[in-house]
Amino acid sequence: MRIETLSTFPGMFDSIMGSSMMRIAQEKGILEFTAHDLRDWTHDRHRTTDDDPYGGGQGLVMKCEPIFEAYDEIAASGIGKPCTIFLSPTGEPFSEALATELSVCERLLFVCGHYEGIDERAYSLADKTISIGDYVLTSGELASMVIIDAVVRKIDGVLGDEAGAIDESFYDGLLEYPQYTRPASFRGMDVPAVLLSGNHAAVERWRREMSLERTARLRPDLIASANLDASDRTFLGSLGIGGEGCSR
Amino acid sequence: MRIETLSTFPGMFDSIMGSSMMRIAQEKGILEFTAHDLRDWTHDRHRTTDDDPYGGGQGLVMKCEPIFEAYDEIAASGIGKPCTIFLSPTGEPFSEALATELSVCERLLFVCGHYEGIDERAYSLADKTISIGDYVLTSGELASMVIIDAVVRKIDGVLGDEAGAIDESFYDGLLEYPQYTRPASFRGMDVPAVLLSGNHAAVERWRREMSLERTARLRPDLIASANLDASDRTFLGSLGIGGEGCSR
Repeated sequence: MRIETLSTFPGMFDSIMGSSMMRIAQEKGILEFTAHDLRDWTHDRHRTTDDDPYGGGQGLVMKCEPIFEAYDEIAASGIGKPCTIFLSPTGEPFSEALATELSVCERLLFVCGHYEGIDERAYSLADKTISIGDYVLTSGELASMVIIDAVVRKIDGVLGDEAGAIDESFYDGLLEYPQYTRPASFRGMDVPAVLLSGNHAAVERWRREMSLERTARLRPDLIASANLDASDRTFLGSLGIGGEGCSR
Repeated sequence: MRIETLSTFPGMFDSIMGSSMMRIAQEKGILEFTAHDLRDWTHDRHRTTDDDPYGGGQGLVMKCEPIFEAYDEIAASGIGKPCTIFLSPTGEPFSEALATELSVCERLLFVCGHYEGIDERAYSLADKTISIGDYVLTSGELASMVIIDAVVRKIDGVLGDEAGAIDESFYDGLLEYPQYTRPASFRGMDVPAVLLSGNHAAVERWRREMSLERTARLRPDLIASANLDASDRTFLGSLGIGGEGCSR
């Protein structure tokens, strides 16, 4: 996969893209990453990328001209038009399903604001506008890296077995069960006996029930769309949760 | 504010924490940041921080012992006990309200997993467990940086007027209205005439209605908890949206 970013702080990607999984994915030749500097497509001495908003108000707005010029040049180079992603609180909420969808693209381009909004006309370049959550970030670079991390880890060959544990999160749309490793007892806190029992069926059942209980308690909104079977529903019923009806 | 992180990849914080707003906040003396290396609290030759899960399964689990030892030492140094935050998909969903709450803390400590789950007993150290969204990340470091960005930008004196524009996001719980800057016409796309009118009341009204329309169309789930007045409700009614009733 080829991933490119377009922003005014391209150096912000260095530590993340040069470490751990991202470094390995590039060394394996699975990922090719370039952080473009939007200022390379400006033509004034100050390399201006923003200007005052029409209609007045505080703050600056990123100009559409350098973004379009950059897009034209980037899209024309290399292997076909990129799937172009803008980051915005107005975007489609990011999810595991969207990460899976993006993980099969050949080429992604992230256009990142920084501090400020982007001229609305630039969004006409977007194949997708994505929000990573209902909060305001200064750094579109950071929001891009969140999406890139969630996407790259899904590409075949990037992660080995070390990723197995965390892959359990959102399995069947449920929160993960609690995990434990040695020692069996630490500062008065013991590992649940079933995990030391060697009874694999009992371990599996305990984990499933812990996932169900936790999801029902902490994130009841996820239960409605979870992939549940009859015994899951019976267990939730025993907790007094039907998994049906209006959640408001 | 003092912000510390505890993880096995402390170098991942370098580019973000050394650039832009984060760098300025540190130079102004408003933010003091330290990325601790969890391996400094291991005692074996391989500096082991993880081990096989009890009950079997793929992947490794982060051991609780180095985390407790690190916590004890970090918490005992400096200005009072930190508000300790774990990152997990099982956590409380991160929001602007939570960012505001954290922005008045004197000291925050983020405990980050990487690739793998954390022994459940370590969560007993958590004052808060937070999820930045319903997706799986390899890097707890990245999730921490998202929270740190959203929090630090709210601290008095960190941002100047350049942040004004983006602050409009989630104002009154609504998505932001579209923004434009020069030129007034670009590749056949014109700035809405009202923004060039000089009529401030009309501009304000247009912006409010665009925020309402956009929120109702793209994120109807936000309308129920938005801060709306009678004229907002009348406008939503004219779109055929009452802002009431069960959203399912």
